[in-house]
Amino acid sequence: MTRQNIYDDAEFFEGYERLRSEDSGLNSAIDQPALTSLLPDVTGLRVVDLGCGFGTSCRDFALAGASSVVGVDPSERMLEVARRIDLPAVTFIRGFAEDVALPTGSVDLVVSSLAFHYVEDLDALFTHIRTWLAQSGVLVFSMEHPVITASPDGRLTSGWLVRDYFSRGRRDTSWFVNGVNKYHRTVSDVVAALARAGFVLDALLEPEPSREAVTDQPSLALHLDRPALLVIKATAR
Amino acid sequence: MTRQNIYDDAEFFEGYERLRSEDSGLNSAIDQPALTSLLPDVTGLRVVDLGCGFGTSCRDFALAGASSVVGVDPSERMLEVARRIDLPAVTFIRGFAEDVALPTGSVDLVVSSLAFHYVEDLDALFTHIRTWLAQSGVLVFSMEHPVITASPDGRLTSGWLVRDYFSRGRRDTSWFVNGVNKYHRTVSDVVAALARAGFVLDALLEPEPSREAVTDQPSLALHLDRPALLVIKATAR
Repeated sequence: MTRQNIYDDAEFFEGYERLRSEDSGLNSAIDQPALTSLLPDVTGLRVVDLGCGFGTSCRDFALAGASSVVGVDPSERMLEVARRIDLPAVTFIRGFAEDVALPTGSVDLVVSSLAFHYVEDLDALFTHIRTWLAQSGVLVFSMEHPVITASPDGRLTSGWLVRDYFSRGRRDTSWFVNGVNKYHRTVSDVVAALARAGFVLDALLEPEPSREAVTDQPSLALHLDRPALLVIKATAR
Repeated sequence: MTRQNIYDDAEFFEGYERLRSEDSGLNSAIDQPALTSLLPDVTGLRVVDLGCGFGTSCRDFALAGASSVVGVDPSERMLEVARRIDLPAVTFIRGFAEDVALPTGSVDLVVSSLAFHYVEDLDALFTHIRTWLAQSGVLVFSMEHPVITASPDGRLTSGWLVRDYFSRGRRDTSWFVNGVNKYHRTVSDVVAALARAGFVLDALLEPEPSREAVTDQPSLALHLDRPALLVIKATAR
């Protein structure tokens, strides 16, 4: 199976870096508040961040008292930036989440922000993560909402066109460059995959931008028409 | 609070009776298979069916060995038909689910098919149901999917237009007659309300019609573009 590492495409990376530095994206207004609301106190925890990108969350977990933080990302360009974080608790591994080998039961918390919609086989990934986790270990992740991945080009002037919701599989989308591959599955597919892998679902959020955020950044109004993200907390049983 | 009892509107009732007898609706192709897949063996169970309509499920539960079955529906026209079912285990109560008084811990299984999208206050309803249920009692229900209740007139030739997903509250829709009131909330609102009321989520399904069903009834193809129903199993903790 060849996997896509679009973040090492120069043109994509430039566009993405611009997006993050201007923060015109979903990250600060919608994703981060929802993810954070589901996180346990990380003091003393062994944390893994899948799709860590520039490593900002890894740094934050370490500064908040995590005993160890492993950031995982397939993009060398991203990790070059991330490695400037010089904290003894933080290490980075280059690779796809699916390929990372960690000892059984060696992790207390797995976090992932907006990466799992790039993963083809969620069953395999969740089962893999489950083996890393200690008893009662926690998985908190966000992904693009299935209402969006179903028909990624669904934006209309007055809402969002949903189509092909039950056609699972790859979608070729455009984001800075053409041919960014994402994988669509339904909300119930995600919930069922977690149960099969040995997780109990604790929370399922569809975060929305606050009215203030929309006033500040009118482009966020789109995210009041349909759910942009699915944010989930699950505990290993 | 005045609640709507649209099923006692003569014109509505006539249209609905026709729909059910022709079975051109969602019931047999999508709703019933999903609900049934989540039901426990009802032998010896005390069952309540909220929005029982013509009472067909009540009859089926009794014939399958339930020790008692209470059908609840606000529509006198519906219950007139339902009362023709003459089985000692089956009784019917006319009323809205929110108003029914049953002894604490007196029920093993609460089932509801396509009624909860008419309910304004899901928190109150779930809390109410929770008091009826014995320890480890089960709630299985289906409702219109939030992707549909958000913008009930979203049907386009090539999909479904989702809008106003985060504007909770009443929607005035047309179904046989104008002014059928439904209440919109998000998927995550439903999941959160269950947790607040003391339930653990066991399963969350977004059922789709089978390819064979779509071949037999091409009008069902619409239900491949977006999820039509949300079907949930939750256990009292």
